[in-house]
Amino acid sequence: MTSAARVAVIGATGYVGFELAKLLLRHPRMNTPLFFLRNGARADEHVRCLADLFPHLRGWGEAPCYPFSVEAVAASGVDVALLATPHEASLALVPELLAAGLRVVDLSGAFRFRDGQTFRRWYHLPAPDATWTQQAVYGLPELYAEGLPQARLVANPGCYPTAVILALRPLRDAGWIAAERGIVCDCKSGVTGAGKEPKRETHFVEVDENFRAYNVFQHRHTPEILEHTGFDPRTLVFTTHLLPIARGILATLYVWLNAPRRSEEIEALYRQFYAGRPMVRIWPAGHLPEIQHVAGTNFCDLGFVLDADGERLVLVSCLDNLGKGAAGQAVQNLNHMLHYPEDTGLR
Amino acid sequence: MTSAARVAVIGATGYVGFELAKLLLRHPRMNTPLFFLRNGARADEHVRCLADLFPHLRGWGEAPCYPFSVEAVAASGVDVALLATPHEASLALVPELLAAGLRVVDLSGAFRFRDGQTFRRWYHLPAPDATWTQQAVYGLPELYAEGLPQARLVANPGCYPTAVILALRPLRDAGWIAAERGIVCDCKSGVTGAGKEPKRETHFVEVDENFRAYNVFQHRHTPEILEHTGFDPRTLVFTTHLLPIARGILATLYVWLNAPRRSEEIEALYRQFYAGRPMVRIWPAGHLPEIQHVAGTNFCDLGFVLDADGERLVLVSCLDNLGKGAAGQAVQNLNHMLHYPEDTGLR
Amino acid sequence: MTSAARVAVIGATGYVGFELAKLLLRHPRMNTPLFFLRNGARADEHVRCLADLFPHLRGWGEAPCYPFSVEAVAASGVDVALLATPHEASLALVPELLAAGLRVVDLSGAFRFRDGQTFRRWYHLPAPDATWTQQAVYGLPELYAEGLPQARLVANPGCYPTAVILALRPLRDAGWIAAERGIVCDCKSGVTGAGKEPKRETHFVEVDENFRAYNVFQHRHTPEILEHTGFDPRTLVFTTHLLPIARGILATLYVWLNAPRRSEEIEALYRQFYAGRPMVRIWPAGHLPEIQHVAGTNFCDLGFVLDADGERLVLVSCLDNLGKGAAGQAVQNLNHMLHYPEDTGLR
Amino acid sequence: MTSAARVAVIGATGYVGFELAKLLLRHPRMNTPLFFLRNGARADEHVRCLADLFPHLRGWGEAPCYPFSVEAVAASGVDVALLATPHEASLALVPELLAAGLRVVDLSGAFRFRDGQTFRRWYHLPAPDATWTQQAVYGLPELYAEGLPQARLVANPGCYPTAVILALRPLRDAGWIAAERGIVCDCKSGVTGAGKEPKRETHFVEVDENFRAYNVFQHRHTPEILEHTGFDPRTLVFTTHLLPIARGILATLYVWLNAPRRSEEIEALYRQFYAGRPMVRIWPAGHLPEIQHVAGTNFCDLGFVLDADGERLVLVSCLDNLGKGAAGQAVQNLNHMLHYPEDTGLR
Repeated sequence: MTSAARVAVIGATGYVGFELAKLLLRHPRMNTPLFFLRNGARADEHVRCLADLFPHLRGWGEAPCYPFSVEAVAASGVDVALLATPHEASLALVPELLAAGLRVVDLSGAFRFRDGQTFRRWYHLPAPDATWTQQAVYGLPELYAEGLPQARLVANPGCYPTAVILALRPLRDAGWIAAERGIVCDCKSGVTGAGKEPKRETHFVEVDENFRAYNVFQHRHTPEILEHTGFDPRTLVFTTHLLPIARGILATLYVWLNAPRRSEEIEALYRQFYAGRPMVRIWPAGHLPEIQHVAGTNFCDLGFVLDADGERLVLVSCLDNLGKGAAGQAVQNLNHMLHYPEDTGLR
Repeated sequence: MTSAARVAVIGATGYVGFELAKLLLRHPRMNTPLFFLRNGARADEHVRCLADLFPHLRGWGEAPCYPFSVEAVAASGVDVALLATPHEASLALVPELLAAGLRVVDLSGAFRFRDGQTFRRWYHLPAPDATWTQQAVYGLPELYAEGLPQARLVANPGCYPTAVILALRPLRDAGWIAAERGIVCDCKSGVTGAGKEPKRETHFVEVDENFRAYNVFQHRHTPEILEHTGFDPRTLVFTTHLLPIARGILATLYVWLNAPRRSEEIEALYRQFYAGRPMVRIWPAGHLPEIQHVAGTNFCDLGFVLDADGERLVLVSCLDNLGKGAAGQAVQNLNHMLHYPEDTGLR
Repeated sequence: MTSAARVAVIGATGYVGFELAKLLLRHPRMNTPLFFLRNGARADEHVRCLADLFPHLRGWGEAPCYPFSVEAVAASGVDVALLATPHEASLALVPELLAAGLRVVDLSGAFRFRDGQTFRRWYHLPAPDATWTQQAVYGLPELYAEGLPQARLVANPGCYPTAVILALRPLRDAGWIAAERGIVCDCKSGVTGAGKEPKRETHFVEVDENFRAYNVFQHRHTPEILEHTGFDPRTLVFTTHLLPIARGILATLYVWLNAPRRSEEIEALYRQFYAGRPMVRIWPAGHLPEIQHVAGTNFCDLGFVLDADGERLVLVSCLDNLGKGAAGQAVQNLNHMLHYPEDTGLR
Repeated sequence: MTSAARVAVIGATGYVGFELAKLLLRHPRMNTPLFFLRNGARADEHVRCLADLFPHLRGWGEAPCYPFSVEAVAASGVDVALLATPHEASLALVPELLAAGLRVVDLSGAFRFRDGQTFRRWYHLPAPDATWTQQAVYGLPELYAEGLPQARLVANPGCYPTAVILALRPLRDAGWIAAERGIVCDCKSGVTGAGKEPKRETHFVEVDENFRAYNVFQHRHTPEILEHTGFDPRTLVFTTHLLPIARGILATLYVWLNAPRRSEEIEALYRQFYAGRPMVRIWPAGHLPEIQHVAGTNFCDLGFVLDADGERLVLVSCLDNLGKGAAGQAVQNLNHMLHYPEDTGLR
């Protein structure tokens, strides 16, 4: 452990930002990050340090907060800037920060698509320029680690896509799925995924003792899943539901195999695919992970049950939407960018 | 069951209003209530019936909603108007409705105090005129039922005061409390008590797996408790906490007795005090009610444990803040006003 | 309202029994039920009335509990006996009660299958005799009401099957489903469905802030769903998950249509199929019911979203597992047996 | 960081044990602990490593589990043995481990009282021998740190006493409390405090949407509070309630001051008392900590509101019952025993 890096965190006012702050403050190879807040992000003038935003951090996370400007970040000498900003803010700021010579990890959806038009259609915002989308690395290290050490821009994936793509890729790459019969991705998430802004949908009384599906056929994470699994949009159905819990995603995935398989084969396929990737854990055939096993961690846990006919397969993929689904994955990407072992500070 | 009354409900857009609607729609001696909504209460023009506000009511509570005006209510021929409106709205509307010849049950705090200045000081709103506060009956039927059949204006009590006053009055009236040693009222409530408006404080993630005290020494229900127990403000401490549940209040009350008593005496005192009052249930000495026993009901359950020394007494009072703490109590008051048995439609 | 019936309830010690007791105690055309407890069901000798089991009922549900025997029930002159007993107990008792001349509603799984061998295989208990299974009416009144008025034995359906069958039958009967592409039934239930017996799986800390799939490909409700939808076992996948809530089921169902349809056609199909059935509520196309809309009710709410291609359909079916999924449905069946309107006492 | 210690953990099968394992596995100055399980603690023969007990630990906490014997622990060469065993087990094992030359931290109640008879009366188990109780250090480092570096036996405090004693001692030591008027300690805890064994009281459905007081005047933590605050048993009332959350304690404490004080004086008193103690955080006067601020940490957060009269004081003390209330505090004690900074591995 010879050196320590320093990063800037821009916009750490929400749940993801809080998680990111905690991970970076504890990271053994990071100096205390520089926290920048945008004008208006906090009307409150009294925010001078992170503990003013998150009283949980009193006494150990009293890191100062600075007013954001591209110049201030560029002048700060940080190795990487992490953006925990809304899509429209990232859309404008990422090119400016890159132009100022910074490396960037963006947690928004703005640069996740090869073709900026996909972003435009699903997010109803202007398309990002191809100059940037072409050079962005989709930050799912288990699939695209090779591009990270040199990456100037990393687009940190969505929470649901991380859970779904990691579960489907081994089977898809092996060519074992009868995709034409349809692939169903029934996903459930905790409420931190819906953001910190008070809304009718996140009022305690609307969530507690309740459960509901939302955004069916219209969820913005759909094109990410399609782009990184390569399935025909007409064969994959992706739905999302809101769980009365704070954090965690569980995706139940239904695939028909194109030939009968044994459980051992499937388990072996997954173990081989994720060999050497410490943040994906494969469960023994017939055992399924639960949200409690991954909450508060950076793990994505994968398990499955195969029907007696060897063709109907139910996969369960679990992760923490603030961990592997957002802030933890950003740190994992950062580790790759800085040539650290990918799980540094993530256990 | 010879006749059925009809009431108007004004402002049934929140949790109390929804509860009131359900109770009145099911009430065996009420015709379908007339629901009036104020301008701006729902910007949404599409609200034509109650099920548009509360989809739970589809198919059985499709009662129409009318635009509110004092004239419309007066012309409708209802027996009583119930106001589930904010304090400031009630402050203005109650005198107008009374002047139009209507009988009124007001669920806000505006008319709960004999002296309107108390309201002004604690609610930071203008004091209601003594013309009205003097004739208002404080609608706690177990204590003040005799005024209800003739009442023109009933001020429906607050949720916490109902729990605390019902628990303390038997002991206080008996003169058994050593009040100078202090009386502690540690109260805990579910989130429906905080209203339906989305706020940071009621965001699921701020409430879930959390618990906190709020408004210590500043809660608006303090003067109600003092007015109806008669204790010196300096000897009674009343605190409130937010539970991660939707509905229910549990108050833990600590009193020192001025002479040693036996549990049997205390139980007998309570049983005698509430004899013939079906909505207050006394638990056997040493057994304590829980929120689950009263949620969804109009009961106030009272239990206690007496220390071996016979002087230190812990009382527990439980009720549903939307039931006996608000809408259910309003219906109980209504029953008295209409000369029905007080528990009609409340079981 | 000319007459009132009287029923016996056998084994009302669990969550379903409690719900059944509340519904029957409030039923406008029922006399107070006779509650019978089996030996050993309550080791506790102190259970003399229902409120000893459920303190919630103090003061209004103080109905006495009698020791159970077939003779005692037969001699009591009740119109119908309802069994809220375990599968093995029902297996033995139902034939005896029928032989004693009683009409029976059984809430267990013992008599739900035309072929008793299906029960044997999935429940690992002896097969019930065909004498009884052949005459049992599967108590899903929206499909099989015509057999109920004369039925001697009604097998009350499982909670998940009620949600799934009601959602799939209109489409299946219309012949619109491309069943060969697969039908996915991803179901989620509250914890009351897991019973009142303390187990590791129902410990608060194992459920709270957690979510998990269970019994994949092995759930006992699978054959009920297959028997009453008629789909090939190899094309339908049924999974169950445990929600951190007390009550309610939400089933998300994925079907591929065999020809493109418009949303209006599908909504019309459902409205027509359930015309005149007050306990099934059809939501407008594109709007989905949530558990909060049905918790505490006897409704089954059905909604759907059709993809732009007109072929991929997501259906959502919601009900309360203790209501329409168990006790409420039993009362609905009872209403048919007694020639009452089917929603009597269920609103 | 020159050396690393090694400890043995005995009986890590419950929630406290799991927390202890996680803290020790992550501790920067500890080698992987040796985990010992007692016969019968796990009937299951398949428990070979910690991840078999807690699947959460797969992939990073695969530490082996050994069969427990005093000899095995003594022979293992560990620096300290931590016991997360039931009271009766600790009562027997602690003297044996001490006799074998080991230093011990015991998390049970067995050695918490100077006078073993206190334990006998409140726990209904044999009194521990004075040989051991006299040399045990009560492991509340903010009060008794000086005894820890040489301690052979540390009795780790109860969760409630930690919260209450830390809140009351500054005021008591200053002599500012009018104790004769009574001190009320109204405490609320999450369910992990009730243990992992499935019981009716911890069934999800009994806890969810519920809240209740329990063990009033009979809680075993009473004598610990009295012993370390020194108040007359007749003036202090301590009650406990069960919150529908997994972890966290909030204690609301009511004291009458014997002379009017200003908020600044009280805040200064607390800041001075806990100066240099990183695990106790004092909140600014008028601001109160919440359970969310301490859940998952080893902090005890203290806040207060003083009434306008300067005499009535409400204190709020928050901690995580598994952290500062149990496992975290054990590690804090361990740090003192091993001459490490007291917050090592606890941030």
